[in-house]
Amino acid sequence: MKAYKDLSKEELQALQRELQEKFAKIKEEGISLDMSRGKPGSDQLDLSLPMLDVLNSESAFKGVQGMDLRNYGILEGITEIRELFSELMEAPVDHVLVYGNSSLNVMYDLIAKAMIHGIGGNTPWCKLDKVKFLCPVPGYDRHFAITESFGIEMIAIPMDENGPDMDLVEQYVNNDAAVKGIWNIPKYSNPSGVVYSDEVVRRFANLKPAAPDFRIFWDNAYAVHHVYVENKAQILNIVEECEKAGNPDMYYELCSTSKITFPGSGVAALITSPANIAEIKKSMTVQTIGHDKLNQMRHVKFFGNADGVHAHMEKHAAILRPKFEAVLNTLEQELGGLEIGSWLKPLGGYFVAFDTLEGCAKRVVALCKEAGVVMTPAGSTYPYMNDPKDTSIRIAPTLPASEELKKACEVFVLCVKLASVEKLLEA
Amino acid sequence: MKAYKDLSKEELQALQRELQEKFAKIKEEGISLDMSRGKPGSDQLDLSLPMLDVLNSESAFKGVQGMDLRNYGILEGITEIRELFSELMEAPVDHVLVYGNSSLNVMYDLIAKAMIHGIGGNTPWCKLDKVKFLCPVPGYDRHFAITESFGIEMIAIPMDENGPDMDLVEQYVNNDAAVKGIWNIPKYSNPSGVVYSDEVVRRFANLKPAAPDFRIFWDNAYAVHHVYVENKAQILNIVEECEKAGNPDMYYELCSTSKITFPGSGVAALITSPANIAEIKKSMTVQTIGHDKLNQMRHVKFFGNADGVHAHMEKHAAILRPKFEAVLNTLEQELGGLEIGSWLKPLGGYFVAFDTLEGCAKRVVALCKEAGVVMTPAGSTYPYMNDPKDTSIRIAPTLPASEELKKACEVFVLCVKLASVEKLLEA
Repeated sequence: MKAYKDLSKEELQALQRELQEKFAKIKEEGISLDMSRGKPGSDQLDLSLPMLDVLNSESAFKGVQGMDLRNYGILEGITEIRELFSELMEAPVDHVLVYGNSSLNVMYDLIAKAMIHGIGGNTPWCKLDKVKFLCPVPGYDRHFAITESFGIEMIAIPMDENGPDMDLVEQYVNNDAAVKGIWNIPKYSNPSGVVYSDEVVRRFANLKPAAPDFRIFWDNAYAVHHVYVENKAQILNIVEECEKAGNPDMYYELCSTSKITFPGSGVAALITSPANIAEIKKSMTVQTIGHDKLNQMRHVKFFGNADGVHAHMEKHAAILRPKFEAVLNTLEQELGGLEIGSWLKPLGGYFVAFDTLEGCAKRVVALCKEAGVVMTPAGSTYPYMNDPKDTSIRIAPTLPASEELKKACEVFVLCVKLASVEKLLEA
Repeated sequence: MKAYKDLSKEELQALQRELQEKFAKIKEEGISLDMSRGKPGSDQLDLSLPMLDVLNSESAFKGVQGMDLRNYGILEGITEIRELFSELMEAPVDHVLVYGNSSLNVMYDLIAKAMIHGIGGNTPWCKLDKVKFLCPVPGYDRHFAITESFGIEMIAIPMDENGPDMDLVEQYVNNDAAVKGIWNIPKYSNPSGVVYSDEVVRRFANLKPAAPDFRIFWDNAYAVHHVYVENKAQILNIVEECEKAGNPDMYYELCSTSKITFPGSGVAALITSPANIAEIKKSMTVQTIGHDKLNQMRHVKFFGNADGVHAHMEKHAAILRPKFEAVLNTLEQELGGLEIGSWLKPLGGYFVAFDTLEGCAKRVVALCKEAGVVMTPAGSTYPYMNDPKDTSIRIAPTLPASEELKKACEVFVLCVKLASVEKLLEA
């Protein structure tokens, strides 16, 4: 297949007519498909159904702490679930604080606390003229929405296949005391699938922040969310690396079972130093009497231990793999060699990141919509929805059933071709 | 029985020796009882056990909105649970926003939002020199802990058997723009059991706040928590009254199933105007993808409708009534006529408020502790733990089993007598 850039104007025009005809036909089909959000498919949700049977009216409700789990109390989460997260995330139990159903909510809350109460006795962020966060791109739109909602200035940091540009990260963090945080999804990053290299993690742990209340937000959302179980990615442990580097309080690591059991009915956890946990619990005790201990116990009884989670995640992978391959095969077969787009092949997570020719992402998403396929809005992977080159598109292959997904990919590559031809003809 | 104040010094001294002997004997028993927190007893929790069976691996998970309740989404709560709260709280469905497991957390969050984002386009409270809240006393320690944690100045407002002193409330709210809110538990108030009179509710609804972002926090925590089912208290509906008065956005009404089903595993709701809900949802959508919809559906399937809740609450009342009567009978039998304490007889809620002679509450609680009975710390029912006359004690009779409760009450009245004699001998 010839690269589009090498086609003559006449060839491009002929191609455009052909693509437009195909597009018109697809529109007539009146399809309605969604590749916009990282939601598990219903077959994945079925995997966790037995969890709904492990607690019932015949159960015992005393945990190892001797308290009735149906009643108030146990702010930090029941010991059993803290031990499960501890084993799963390879962090000491005293580094684990268990929350409600949403790690996004934990991150929002950590920033809200920093805004109102400050971190470690430093000035509350709401009293400062300027607070900045670094945002590796492409990244997760809901991270950026949180920082934007608090009026925090966001600075985009480019990523490559090893993680963020650490020269730039060090330059900002180590010199500018207004830089208070950085968003990261270190493993199977949303949306690129990038796995942070050991060097990147070590450089993170060895930052020398100008701000004493600088925190690495380490959203390990896909810690065990492999797609290829024979080729599981490993990253260095941020807890250990920060301790080794003499920065034991510098990170907040987040995780949840949202995409392990049920999104909305999972359990979220924060992994951080005992000093940070002590500080957070001080305001948490004002905020709530405790989270849902029955749901915590439901998870413990269902999984037993970390091995139980890993075995469960292999079942998820078996469902996800064909979906990822359907997307990747279509991209390769339909776009390979055309030089109108690039993508990485993720080993885990929930997304495929696709880069169009410059100035084409918005148009591709608009065309998809016209043809009945909802994509994440172009720009979503950048702070302020501002993708300066308009190239970044996030593909979420998990929710549609296989046949629908194939159809949606077919529409997507057609729209990429169409938008690319339009762009090249403009030039 | 002769009032203590009418006893001679010698009589008091003789009485003191007698009480001290009894106290010494009780201490030897080495008891360990808790009347400190409003926690349901385990027999009450058993009432809701069948709720754990209504959702299981065989269930259907499509709600009326057609979405899979196991997946992400439905920020405002599933329609079915919003309808249940709507019926129960007698408010239109579009006035109902359903949250996670804790109404305390909703209140915290409403104030946090006001601090950071402001209400209705007004200046965020964190940017103001001074923010004040009115705190009817005796009141709920966790309310006061929230406002204190945000640095909000708290002003105590005395209550009588009809509710807060409304002359004082009007004077503050209608004249001081720094007064941004007032805490209320309008029905079976914590701790006094007071039920707000119709006049009090109407005067609340007809406030003319100096601050446009003033809000009534209407914590209707005990809306259906009757102790005497043949004598259920009714209060006017704050939604309707505020609408009638032309103040449709002035209130946030809170409720939860924490003391209906399982504390920690219940469902909380906010009742407020559609305009307020629209504003809150704007930041909520940044904060979380949604709350636990499976637990919402569990509640819906268990109760069916508001009648189901009311029938369930009659079973709670049957358990609570003997406990309340044990406390009230002991108080009456042991302290009646002695003029060393006063109390109201609550018709619902979770507490009995007891007033000692001036300057005795701390001493009574300390003596109880010495004898092995944990009471809520004296002062807890006042902002800043500052009960200026040191008279207010909260008795929580629900958690101990009946025999334990009788023992705890016996200790309590003995300590009241002992502290009162000490006080009278000092004079």
